[in-house]
Amino acid sequence: VAGGHGSRMGQELPKQFLPLNGKPILLHTLEKFSGIADEIVVVLPASHIDYWKELCFGFENPVPHKIVAGGTSRTASVLNGLQALGEDGLVAVHDAVRPLVSRALIQEVFAAALVHGSAIPVTPVRESLRIKRDAVSEPVDRDDYLAVQTPQGFRISKLLEAYRISSGAVFSDDATVFGKAGFAIHTLPGEVANIKITFREDLIFATALTA
Amino acid sequence: VAGGHGSRMGQELPKQFLPLNGKPILLHTLEKFSGIADEIVVVLPASHIDYWKELCFGFENPVPHKIVAGGTSRTASVLNGLQALGEDGLVAVHDAVRPLVSRALIQEVFAAALVHGSAIPVTPVRESLRIKRDAVSEPVDRDDYLAVQTPQGFRISKLLEAYRISSGAVFSDDATVFGKAGFAIHTLPGEVANIKITFREDLIFATALTA
Repeated sequence: VAGGHGSRMGQELPKQFLPLNGKPILLHTLEKFSGIADEIVVVLPASHIDYWKELCFGFENPVPHKIVAGGTSRTASVLNGLQALGEDGLVAVHDAVRPLVSRALIQEVFAAALVHGSAIPVTPVRESLRIKRDAVSEPVDRDDYLAVQTPQGFRISKLLEAYRISSGAVFSDDATVFGKAGFAIHTLPGEVANIKITFREDLIFATALTA
Repeated sequence: VAGGHGSRMGQELPKQFLPLNGKPILLHTLEKFSGIADEIVVVLPASHIDYWKELCFGFENPVPHKIVAGGTSRTASVLNGLQALGEDGLVAVHDAVRPLVSRALIQEVFAAALVHGSAIPVTPVRESLRIKRDAVSEPVDRDDYLAVQTPQGFRISKLLEAYRISSGAVFSDDATVFGKAGFAIHTLPGEVANIKITFREDLIFATALTA
C-alpha cells in the first residue's frame, strides 16, 4: 500500500518514489516480497500510477506486480487491493515505505497467518508514553502497549469479511479492521529496522542500513 | 543519566561507551550540553566510573563534568545526580544514550522550564498502538498518545520536592515523577532524530546522522 502523498517529507515526490541507494523505495520493498508472494498488488493514488510506470522503465527487471488505484483512506486503498486478489489463500498487507523488512519476517508472517488466520508483527514501545486528557497529558506504562508494524498477514477470505463488516469505517491498520470484526489477532515479534520511512532522518537511516 | 548495562546491545560494553564516529556516545552527548549548561553531572553505575575516567583520558579536552554513582533504578540514579546540584536554577535530565539531540532543543527546554517550571519534549507516536489486555490486545488511537523524549527540564527545587513526595517509587522518566507530585507538565515538540541508542540498528542510524 503506497498511499502517501509525501507531505511530511518536505518535498514534492511521494516518499515511496524517493531513491534509496539509487533505487525507488517501493522497488526495494517489492524485491523483499519477490519469490515469497505468488502475486504482488501495488495500491497507488490514481494520479501517481503513470509516474510509477515510467519510473519502473528505468530499472532492469522490476519485480512483476499488478497496479490498483487507491481510495480516499488507507482502509479504502487496502480494500481495493484485496479485491484484485482471489478469495483463496493468504495476503500480507504491507506499507510500501517499509523497505527494510526482512524476507525472514515476511515468511514468518505468512507461516503464522496460515496457522492462526492472522499474523501481526509487534515490538515493545521504546519511548515513555503519555495519554492526552483534554489540554493536559498523563503518563501510562509503556509496557502495557505494543507498537504495530507491517506486513500483516491474514486469510484473504476472513480479511474481506472483516472489511465488509466494517463497511467504510477508517482504521490505521488492518489488524484493527480484523479485530473489530471479532476475529482473533495473533502477534509475532517485529523488527527494530522495519521502520516506516516518513521523515528525512528515516531515509538517512534506511540508506545506512541498505548500503 | 548513563545507567544502562548494555544487555540489549548484544555485546559487553555498555552502550553509552560505544564509539560513534570514533568517540564514545557519552562524549557526544556531553558536547551537546557544553556551553549551554553551567554544570554537567554524569550519573554512572559505580562499577563503570573508573572505566569511564580512563576512556576520557584518550580524548583531547573532554567536556568538564562531575561524576556521581547511580542507584538501583533510573529514578534512584537521577536523584543521586540532582543531589550533586544546588537547589537553585534549572536542570535538564537527559539520557546519555541520546547523543543526537540538537543544541537548539536543549536551549528550548531550558527556556521553557524557566517560564513553565517544566519542559518535556514529545513527539507523535509513529506506529499503530495496541494495549495488552490479559492474553490478547486491543487497538488504541495513537493520536491520543505522546512519545516522550529527554532532555526534560525542571526547576531543580520543584523536581527535588517531587522526588521527596514519590519517595522511592520507580518511574520511567522524570516527567512522571514530577506529574505524580501534582506539578504541571509543559510539553514542547521533540525531534525525530533524538533517539535512544538501544539496538545495533540505532547505532548505524546515529553514525549516519553524525557523519
